[in-house]
Amino acid sequence: MDSLHRLEELFAKFPGIGPRQAKRFVYHLLNKSPSYIREFTQLIEEVRTSSHECEQCHRFFSSETKKPSGTCSICSDSSRDVSLLMIVARDSDFETVEKSGAYKGLYFVLGGTVPILDKEPDKRIRLKQLLEEVSRKSSAVKEIILSLNATPDGEHTATIVKEALHKVTKNRSVSISILGRGLSTGAELEYVDSETIKNALRNRTV
Amino acid sequence: MDSLHRLEELFAKFPGIGPRQAKRFVYHLLNKSPSYIREFTQLIEEVRTSSHECEQCHRFFSSETKKPSGTCSICSDSSRDVSLLMIVARDSDFETVEKSGAYKGLYFVLGGTVPILDKEPDKRIRLKQLLEEVSRKSSAVKEIILSLNATPDGEHTATIVKEALHKVTKNRSVSISILGRGLSTGAELEYVDSETIKNALRNRTV
Amino acid sequence: MDSLHRLEELFAKFPGIGPRQAKRFVYHLLNKSPSYIREFTQLIEEVRTSSHECEQCHRFFSSETKKPSGTCSICSDSSRDVSLLMIVARDSDFETVEKSGAYKGLYFVLGGTVPILDKEPDKRIRLKQLLEEVSRKSSAVKEIILSLNATPDGEHTATIVKEALHKVTKNRSVSISILGRGLSTGAELEYVDSETIKNALRNRTV
Amino acid sequence: MDSLHRLEELFAKFPGIGPRQAKRFVYHLLNKSPSYIREFTQLIEEVRTSSHECEQCHRFFSSETKKPSGTCSICSDSSRDVSLLMIVARDSDFETVEKSGAYKGLYFVLGGTVPILDKEPDKRIRLKQLLEEVSRKSSAVKEIILSLNATPDGEHTATIVKEALHKVTKNRSVSISILGRGLSTGAELEYVDSETIKNALRNRTV
Repeated sequence: MDSLHRLEELFAKFPGIGPRQAKRFVYHLLNKSPSYIREFTQLIEEVRTSSHECEQCHRFFSSETKKPSGTCSICSDSSRDVSLLMIVARDSDFETVEKSGAYKGLYFVLGGTVPILDKEPDKRIRLKQLLEEVSRKSSAVKEIILSLNATPDGEHTATIVKEALHKVTKNRSVSISILGRGLSTGAELEYVDSETIKNALRNRTV
Repeated sequence: MDSLHRLEELFAKFPGIGPRQAKRFVYHLLNKSPSYIREFTQLIEEVRTSSHECEQCHRFFSSETKKPSGTCSICSDSSRDVSLLMIVARDSDFETVEKSGAYKGLYFVLGGTVPILDKEPDKRIRLKQLLEEVSRKSSAVKEIILSLNATPDGEHTATIVKEALHKVTKNRSVSISILGRGLSTGAELEYVDSETIKNALRNRTV
Repeated sequence: MDSLHRLEELFAKFPGIGPRQAKRFVYHLLNKSPSYIREFTQLIEEVRTSSHECEQCHRFFSSETKKPSGTCSICSDSSRDVSLLMIVARDSDFETVEKSGAYKGLYFVLGGTVPILDKEPDKRIRLKQLLEEVSRKSSAVKEIILSLNATPDGEHTATIVKEALHKVTKNRSVSISILGRGLSTGAELEYVDSETIKNALRNRTV
Repeated sequence: MDSLHRLEELFAKFPGIGPRQAKRFVYHLLNKSPSYIREFTQLIEEVRTSSHECEQCHRFFSSETKKPSGTCSICSDSSRDVSLLMIVARDSDFETVEKSGAYKGLYFVLGGTVPILDKEPDKRIRLKQLLEEVSRKSSAVKEIILSLNATPDGEHTATIVKEALHKVTKNRSVSISILGRGLSTGAELEYVDSETIKNALRNRTV
């Protein structure tokens, strides 16, 4: 296979990209000047080498904002509420929550989710690092919030993480919570599934 | 305008139907036998005349299931929890909730919602009848649950209904609740809006 | 089954309507005044009884525009080109062509299409009436245009109609044509299927 | 702006990619091993440097398949019909046509289309090179086929190209054709626009 098709195959594995769009990406690059290509590839390498996986929350961040402690700007921000630790699956989930401005605690990025029937969750998510981090944070953490997708994979991952956490938290007063279920913004009752109705009723607020 | 186009116009006002589909409906009927047409129109009249608006919850039901009390099968079902009254906008919303099997109280159908900026809510929803019904049910009701869409119109209607209810409930121990907000089934965190993140965090459950 | 559910079932057989929307239609009617219901049902009956299937082209039209000859305004319009006869599947297809203003000949409405594997095309489309009409029009018709969908069912129906027409036209100078295939308005080459490319190439114009 | 956001911006300019997906692309790369990143960037550079713009048709191709003549495998394939020259806007359009197997002539890739109102078509498309190539091919070419999108930009580009070609072809017997217009595969008559009906009627085939 020539390099053109090998590149097509790499693009076809980008999130949400199929073979047809992968081909268009290759042509997009073919039409660019050599100086653009140089800038583009250098940027990719720079981003990869200059970006850092935070030692505590494991999210990626630009090392330009890296703290002497080896942690990201959030983990080293003393104004954040250290009693709260939110577990998210991916960096993009972290971004969604942070953008909402509704959360002021710390994070931990699992790095993925565990598909149902998967036998080796340890290879999918940072379970060992999570337990270490929770142990390390020790008494500071009062609540661990599982912020995972309300999908089968998300629920399955939540179950696995919860069980693992119970081992290291059982002798400490740490509560484990999950994001509330109910009507999402814009939901029209007529089209809502029974499960969501049940949750919305159970979580109704006065 | 001939009858064919007048019928087209009536169909074009059916929920979710545009002019093109209205035209197809007319052709659909034109291709039917006279006996089908007779059955169809008789059924429409029968449904309209034989269906009853329940005196208590104001939902429509077939008078074949009408109780001597003039109420529907739910309002006259002694096994329902009379301490709970759920307010829904439409009959179809009532159906969604009832189908979920998660609710065992009574209902009240408003008959619509109040658009923002609308000056005369009384013409849009059964506000007067609601207050009468709540007064009539008197001490039995302990909680009124507002089950309205999580849309601007739904929120606006909830505000109007809540204010009106406060007048008749202020001297009684009746709480007014709304359906819980949060992640609906299938929600993926990455695509969730900030408002829903806020609600899901606020309503998180241990 | 009560009348309410019987009506729901009839609506669920309307073109493009599923059970959920059928239910909404019933509630739509339940919320209408008795006078609306009376107007609606009378209109349906009126449209059905007052609309006429044209004796020649078999399309439905309001009898208010019926000609003494028993034919529709197009079949009795002496300015139309009688040498052209266009065969369409449905009244709605006739409307699309007529609205384009591109055709000035006469029509014949088959009343449907013949699904692949169907054994009795005669029960699906007005094949017998078509042959009678073509025989009756006799020497006037010079070209019969098959205007059927570019779908498997449309192609299959075209084949059946063409074969049947060959029997009655073989000794006469009548040509049978089909609508041109190629790029439809708005088509982007990159997303066009191979079949359409082939047709567009074969039918390219100088 | 740090490198992470600069890379995001470059990805957001990829065809069909918005800011959200651009961000996901960056995270996709952040999660990759250094060896993957090296392979990926090398492949991009290799594709760019090793791919060649054909001197005759101007499409890009891997130089691994480059002929001594400096042309691509199609331009140097003696079995292709040199009397036909097809003009396409982009490499991806070339691929669609070639994949259909319906065309055995040569190609010329314009490199883009000219938006309506654009004042300098020469900067958008390879107009000068096209005229040179047509002059060079001289008497061999008998038909030039304009295979452009059936969109306003495509039509506009066709007009510009046609006018330019007339200058160099006026004393020679070269015809200029465009792809046939009509029903594309799968088209349902009921939903077809009037322009397409007109074209399908004009291009009807016996």
